[in-house]
Amino acid sequence: MFIDAAGEKLIADNFDNELQSGQKDRFKQQIEFILEVDKLKHVLRQTILMDKSRRENSAEHSWHIALTVMLLSEYARDGEIDFFRVMRILLVHDLIEIDAGDTYCYDDQGRKDQAAKERLAADRIFNILPPDQAQTFRNLWDEFEERKTPESRFANALDRVQPFLHNYFTRGQTWQENDIKSAQVKARMQPVDDGAPVLWRYVSSLIDDAVKNGFLSK
Amino acid sequence: MFIDAAGEKLIADNFDNELQSGQKDRFKQQIEFILEVDKLKHVLRQTILMDKSRRENSAEHSWHIALTVMLLSEYARDGEIDFFRVMRILLVHDLIEIDAGDTYCYDDQGRKDQAAKERLAADRIFNILPPDQAQTFRNLWDEFEERKTPESRFANALDRVQPFLHNYFTRGQTWQENDIKSAQVKARMQPVDDGAPVLWRYVSSLIDDAVKNGFLSK
Repeated sequence: MFIDAAGEKLIADNFDNELQSGQKDRFKQQIEFILEVDKLKHVLRQTILMDKSRRENSAEHSWHIALTVMLLSEYARDGEIDFFRVMRILLVHDLIEIDAGDTYCYDDQGRKDQAAKERLAADRIFNILPPDQAQTFRNLWDEFEERKTPESRFANALDRVQPFLHNYFTRGQTWQENDIKSAQVKARMQPVDDGAPVLWRYVSSLIDDAVKNGFLSK
Repeated sequence: MFIDAAGEKLIADNFDNELQSGQKDRFKQQIEFILEVDKLKHVLRQTILMDKSRRENSAEHSWHIALTVMLLSEYARDGEIDFFRVMRILLVHDLIEIDAGDTYCYDDQGRKDQAAKERLAADRIFNILPPDQAQTFRNLWDEFEERKTPESRFANALDRVQPFLHNYFTRGQTWQENDIKSAQVKARMQPVDDGAPVLWRYVSSLIDDAVKNGFLSK
């Protein structure tokens, strides 16, 4: 067992003697990464849980949308895509928030320097991993952000649908607290149409319904 | 918009007019399921987060171990397995806790009637889905529980390694609170050897280390 300089934190440095030296370093990096990503459970989003008891964190959100791949794959715009990659993209896509935080999607000021913060975060966090895995994770995150492949377009659609459902089914509590208008929500949801047109038509009808019923401003 | 009898809960019943009637029912069931599984975020486990600030919930745990598939696949006992299925098994494996709760792995009394409670939970929760998806989810959960396939053995290994790491790197706080002995931990970790021998040897060395350093009783 090793304890860091502050005497506070155990260091992952107790490895199998049957591993070669290079393998040990690799394994150590993988374990350090597993410990590091635990921090995503502390990143709070604006979204509230369905029972309104508290805000959701980004680890919970990532689980929920990765599961949603299994439920809604039939609605992907491009049917013959690699859903395993969609799932991996979604499990990875928010890790940069460990350093960069979650920026509310309607916070236009906050979003301006968000991209730069997120790239710095990606540089640090993914590079805890052995180089080949660091590159794999970085590629998945870049793919998500660029929204060019069918897989990333479907991933982005699911990433937007889930918090939308939370908003709608909690009667727009977060929308109202932040004085959000329906045009903002429609613009924010546009990637849903790119990735899953059926889901977009559903979202669109719920937006209209939310306005009609007074829990989203016109 | 529809509101249920108690006037408390919005019902997912606002569907795309372009969908056929059968498709609408299917879509409605899928959306209901997405809303239902949100409850997994309220199921608290004995495991505490790495910073000891609070207990982990089962949604966070499921995300963490699904991500771990991407990190540790090279240590699976059987190399040529379907890691997409491993990942899907792990995303699904704790859903039954929405009804059955999380039973502490060292609570022998509680575990006696746990299996029956979990089967009832599976019957209810998975059957919210359209029949084909309900069957898919049930099959994945059964596969996890039976531990017969290489995929489920690797999934079980990861499911046990992650909380073990939390225990070790928080200096055995939960072990001590529950007066757990090293022989219990070794027995509990046996499936790690079945699924990932390298990980088992690592776990085994950390158990010895935890005893030596006084945060796990011999």
